[in-house]
Amino acid sequence: MTFAAAVDAVVPVDEQARSDAQSLSDRLTKPNGALGAMETIGATLAAIAATSPPPVPEPAAVAVFAADHGVVGEAVTPWPAEVTAQMVANICAGGAAISVLARHAGAQVTVVDVGVQATLDSHPSLVDAKVRPGTANLAEGPAMTAAECAAALDVGASVARQLTAAGARCLVTGDMGIGNTTAAAAVIAALCHRSAAEVTGRGTGIDDEMLAHKMAVVERALARLPEQAPAVEVLAEVGGLEIAALAGFIVGGAAARVPVIVDGVIACAALTAAAALVPDAVGYCVAGHLSSEPGARVALERVGLDPVLDLHMRLGEGTGACLALPVVQASAKILREMATFDSAGVTEK
Amino acid sequence: MTFAAAVDAVVPVDEQARSDAQSLSDRLTKPNGALGAMETIGATLAAIAATSPPPVPEPAAVAVFAADHGVVGEAVTPWPAEVTAQMVANICAGGAAISVLARHAGAQVTVVDVGVQATLDSHPSLVDAKVRPGTANLAEGPAMTAAECAAALDVGASVARQLTAAGARCLVTGDMGIGNTTAAAAVIAALCHRSAAEVTGRGTGIDDEMLAHKMAVVERALARLPEQAPAVEVLAEVGGLEIAALAGFIVGGAAARVPVIVDGVIACAALTAAAALVPDAVGYCVAGHLSSEPGARVALERVGLDPVLDLHMRLGEGTGACLALPVVQASAKILREMATFDSAGVTEK
Repeated sequence: MTFAAAVDAVVPVDEQARSDAQSLSDRLTKPNGALGAMETIGATLAAIAATSPPPVPEPAAVAVFAADHGVVGEAVTPWPAEVTAQMVANICAGGAAISVLARHAGAQVTVVDVGVQATLDSHPSLVDAKVRPGTANLAEGPAMTAAECAAALDVGASVARQLTAAGARCLVTGDMGIGNTTAAAAVIAALCHRSAAEVTGRGTGIDDEMLAHKMAVVERALARLPEQAPAVEVLAEVGGLEIAALAGFIVGGAAARVPVIVDGVIACAALTAAAALVPDAVGYCVAGHLSSEPGARVALERVGLDPVLDLHMRLGEGTGACLALPVVQASAKILREMATFDSAGVTEK
Repeated sequence: MTFAAAVDAVVPVDEQARSDAQSLSDRLTKPNGALGAMETIGATLAAIAATSPPPVPEPAAVAVFAADHGVVGEAVTPWPAEVTAQMVANICAGGAAISVLARHAGAQVTVVDVGVQATLDSHPSLVDAKVRPGTANLAEGPAMTAAECAAALDVGASVARQLTAAGARCLVTGDMGIGNTTAAAAVIAALCHRSAAEVTGRGTGIDDEMLAHKMAVVERALARLPEQAPAVEVLAEVGGLEIAALAGFIVGGAAARVPVIVDGVIACAALTAAAALVPDAVGYCVAGHLSSEPGARVALERVGLDPVLDLHMRLGEGTGACLALPVVQASAKILREMATFDSAGVTEK
């Protein structure tokens, strides 16, 4: 499925089903509202599935979009670019944090090479969809061409389509790319109209000096963009291949009418782009967690999503979203399996 | 096991194992600290188990201590007392929120009648350990005698022992009792030296008028206590049978050296009492979530625990703790299953 076809397939979530789920929730054997965010999530799942109670969103599939970033040449991270490819191998071998957390949650992991610099060994869990071997340095010029950005959007939409066609009923966003918090900060700043200082964070944990330099790099990149640059132009100019692919993946999930659990700041950058391109896609998203990267909060506030978890995580890979998965699935089970006051013979207040 | 025997069996958690787990965490293929609270929880599990990496805390057992409260005669809740017994039946039948969430998390639920007013039908999941059929009205005089409080503490310790002897490697606190947020507020106020207004909340969702009345009831009860009343006297005078039993359960879990996942405000009241009686027991506790009842935050700050989840829940039953269970278990798996930089051949920064 192309990104354009996915865009055309997105319809607004079903507000009647959301309202039905809220009414059902109020008849369950608990005080009104006592399950807090669980009730909100359950109603969102109903709106997404267009039925109440909603189906349990399982099985879930995590797609980890991997790509390299030319901006690592600017010394915005202490990690060498070769780590992207090494971590792809680690994920495929089952030893990365996302591998552990996905197994724990019963979700399958697919790694999508949308732009890793190195040529990767093939692996059953690895999809080769390389658009180009890493972006150009976004501090100096466009990270990619408009055509490459369109191709990355297509990769994301296509992966969403393949995973849902294979049976996934919930998608989880993942990412891997040394340097990608720099690109994510630039995308969020541009699309949320914030300064580099407001959205640029320490990523893997850089010191004050490198952070100041990273902010300057983001600011320099932003200076090339017109005031109200369209989202696709922002992605191409200052984004990353995995960020563009994730935007396509989110829209692809919305097109398939499945919940998309959004991870940390890289996914949040993609989400702001997806929201700008296809506003109705946001209704299919659940913010899995609040990354400690400052851009994540800015992006989630911009699109109006409350994060499920807040565990001060900043790892990416899809780890925070994957940890939220059992909570999201539980919200559906509450609506499906709890007794009502009538059915259980419990007296109401 | 008596409560006294449990108290004697509690030893401090193992700080060397905590430190070993932190060192191990820093060798895993992720930036230092990038898994945030997950790393802290993993290290806590190591300290509890006195080994690093810690075992995965499974299977888990939820104990729902149920009791009635004479203070419902003061109109502090719109729910009739008969709902306690009805909800016990609902939990046993598998239709309550805790039933759904425990199934989801793979945990077994045991309901312990430590003081329900009605005589309950027997059920395989129900333990009859009734100390008395509900407390006396704590607004007017002691909720229970010192002997009854001691018996309830014994019930809790004994249930913890039975569940761990049967194989549970993680305990989850649960409660059911119409009126119990009033007793919990009184216990927390007394043991944390706060006013009734600071710790009394809306419970199941009462209006402003009833809340003001509830605060006055708590204040009246607190006035009978001396300034530095011992925790056992606080439990007997203004507590509840399930709150005392939960304090015994927490200490019993610590005695068995298993993690105890603490639920909302009722469990937090029990935790403050357990912490006052056996300070070393706190090291075995993980705060499952932050209840929206104000007393929960006060209690958790007092004992120094950060809640895993904050989903604006206020249902009790063990629901918030049960939802945190997969996150807690995942923290152990991170330490057990993730590759190190060495083992995965990933370059360090």
